[in-house]
Amino acid sequence: MALDDLVISESEHKSRIEKIRNRLKKSGSRALYLTNPTRILYLTGFSHISTERPLALVVPQDGRIFIMGPHLEEDHVKQDSRIIEEFFSYSDYPGETHPIRHFVKVLRQKGLAGAKIATDSVDGAAGGWGYRGPSLRDLLKQSKMIDGRDLVDQLRLVKSTQEIRLLEESARWAEKAHDILLESIAPGVHDALVGVKASYETLTRMMRKLGARYCQLKWGLSPVVVGCRGQVGPASAVPHAVFSKRKIRRGDVLVTEAGVEVGGYTSELERTVIVGRAGSREKRYFEIMLKAQNAALESFRAGIPCSAVDAAAREAVERAGLADNLRHHVGHGIGIDGHEPPWLDPGEKKIMKTGMVFSCEPGLYVPGLAGFRHSDTIKITQRGMDFVTEYPRELENLIV
Amino acid sequence: MALDDLVISESEHKSRIEKIRNRLKKSGSRALYLTNPTRILYLTGFSHISTERPLALVVPQDGRIFIMGPHLEEDHVKQDSRIIEEFFSYSDYPGETHPIRHFVKVLRQKGLAGAKIATDSVDGAAGGWGYRGPSLRDLLKQSKMIDGRDLVDQLRLVKSTQEIRLLEESARWAEKAHDILLESIAPGVHDALVGVKASYETLTRMMRKLGARYCQLKWGLSPVVVGCRGQVGPASAVPHAVFSKRKIRRGDVLVTEAGVEVGGYTSELERTVIVGRAGSREKRYFEIMLKAQNAALESFRAGIPCSAVDAAAREAVERAGLADNLRHHVGHGIGIDGHEPPWLDPGEKKIMKTGMVFSCEPGLYVPGLAGFRHSDTIKITQRGMDFVTEYPRELENLIV
Repeated sequence: MALDDLVISESEHKSRIEKIRNRLKKSGSRALYLTNPTRILYLTGFSHISTERPLALVVPQDGRIFIMGPHLEEDHVKQDSRIIEEFFSYSDYPGETHPIRHFVKVLRQKGLAGAKIATDSVDGAAGGWGYRGPSLRDLLKQSKMIDGRDLVDQLRLVKSTQEIRLLEESARWAEKAHDILLESIAPGVHDALVGVKASYETLTRMMRKLGARYCQLKWGLSPVVVGCRGQVGPASAVPHAVFSKRKIRRGDVLVTEAGVEVGGYTSELERTVIVGRAGSREKRYFEIMLKAQNAALESFRAGIPCSAVDAAAREAVERAGLADNLRHHVGHGIGIDGHEPPWLDPGEKKIMKTGMVFSCEPGLYVPGLAGFRHSDTIKITQRGMDFVTEYPRELENLIV
Repeated sequence: MALDDLVISESEHKSRIEKIRNRLKKSGSRALYLTNPTRILYLTGFSHISTERPLALVVPQDGRIFIMGPHLEEDHVKQDSRIIEEFFSYSDYPGETHPIRHFVKVLRQKGLAGAKIATDSVDGAAGGWGYRGPSLRDLLKQSKMIDGRDLVDQLRLVKSTQEIRLLEESARWAEKAHDILLESIAPGVHDALVGVKASYETLTRMMRKLGARYCQLKWGLSPVVVGCRGQVGPASAVPHAVFSKRKIRRGDVLVTEAGVEVGGYTSELERTVIVGRAGSREKRYFEIMLKAQNAALESFRAGIPCSAVDAAAREAVERAGLADNLRHHVGHGIGIDGHEPPWLDPGEKKIMKTGMVFSCEPGLYVPGLAGFRHSDTIKITQRGMDFVTEYPRELENLIV
């Protein structure tokens, strides 16, 4: 791998913008107006903490790309993105004049007030944390506002070489984080503490190795998120548990997770781990979960509907008579967001394409006993699939 | 403090629900339909990771409180909340039948299909991570859907004794985390590593001391978020920096932050810290920032408009001729969300009331040099204000 920065290159951002402009032309829209931080990051490389303060990226069909946003982001934008050519600031939210009224003024100056505009928010703002405001659509009655979400989101379905490289770098560090996690798991410790410690140790190694090539783009205490998220013993039967009320015990089934943000992208690695010795019930569920994951993994290939992968795993589970223990579909696309379309779900008709990246994570949940789920990140190749996360999946390697 | 659990009690949740029901009666609405995870947590104590999978809490004016959501949250809800009386699940998103169509069926069964419904989302879903779906309003044409956000959000403006107790417990641990952070800051270390390490050490002490009384409700690697968030040296002039491209150096100005989630609530503590020795320019900006914070702190009291606190700080800054170095207003309400209304902003006409809790954080930003900002959390009392965060603010205590 070349020793360049671990972020998407400026030229790739330019090519993404070019694709957007072509799509704007086709749809007859004069501009794309975006408020979602993931879409803004995808097009420009600019990452920000989205708050109650409205911030919008405007990509006109022709003309300069600009952001309208709070004064506190002005220097941030100028420093972090060469794609964004202008910044129009307001002092703060709510302000004596509402920010959306400032935005309308800028759009008028730019000659966009009467135009057809594609957007991901007719309100004009992402709208977090108690935000209230007039809707952009109401203030721009002479404009026609159309749904512009898919203009960006369709580009995001198939990952570029650069995106896959970042996901693979993410996976290398997630594997390391998971190794460190497994070394620290023991009866009597709390999973939350083990996780934060493994994050610290992984981040230390990662920053030593990568140095200035590494830049965290999305805010979080650490770009290395590793641990069990409360999925400890019987609580592992709740797929979206948050916190364990007790410490780890001998015999516990744990469901782990390890994700490392690299250039905005995070792969997904999860394992079912057993502390000490696996009982016969635990072994049985583990083996069937593994069969289901194998069935799913073997079914990935370009040209089939995404629903087929879910069906393959489900069939393996049904054959074992455990359909009642399913609680969710087999997986999801993955990229800048932790979950992205397409979905590995019975209702997903989209056709798989080379370059798509998915989590593969069939799970079995047994209330009172435990949950059993591995998650791997895979990419669709011309020959079928390849692992992005490379980590042992057999029980013998996952007893600690 | 009594040795009860560090969460809002069931009886307080019941009283919140009772207030909602009275408000529903007054507005003639048959039910409140909520999708925002903060509002759901506020009313029920149930905290969940909000994803592309729609989940809605319904509080009818009369009748059982229920959640409609994905199968994977069913056991989670049953285990964590006694306020929620029923759960209606769908298998997964997008599903062969879209979840919102399942929700409509449930609402029909409940006799709510033709009713006036207050809601925080006419779409029917919180809508994260690539979610798409038909709008609930379109599918329930015979219902009248009205904006129900303020039904909950107005209750949240003034904090209860329990809420303030959680914020104060949060502040005690944030102060400890900040002490540990200051002990680890030194030239040659990276702020991200120092932050994760301080989080680990604080969490270790906190869990040892609080034991089973403590329960993390909101997902994050650690409930203790502490560090500099990239606000290191000249990069501290960007208020919403995310990551520092270089290590800490002697002479650097740092802006720190420490927040600890307790029962869903997180106070805010930030300090301007100088490494080694403060130069004369740094000292000057620091002192004027401190004067501005003092002016704001002295102005808090019930009965005045929130804008008055912003004006007091601004006046102190203007008197020093540094108005150009302001980048944001003085602060915000704080509770379950990190930022909440009311805002300490020129445009905020709301009147301050006893029991409101605010951050107080005027900042001065000098491109090329540094940013200067302390943030404290304070509560409005009958006599004026009291600190929730109690931590040295003078320069002599903040040189490390």
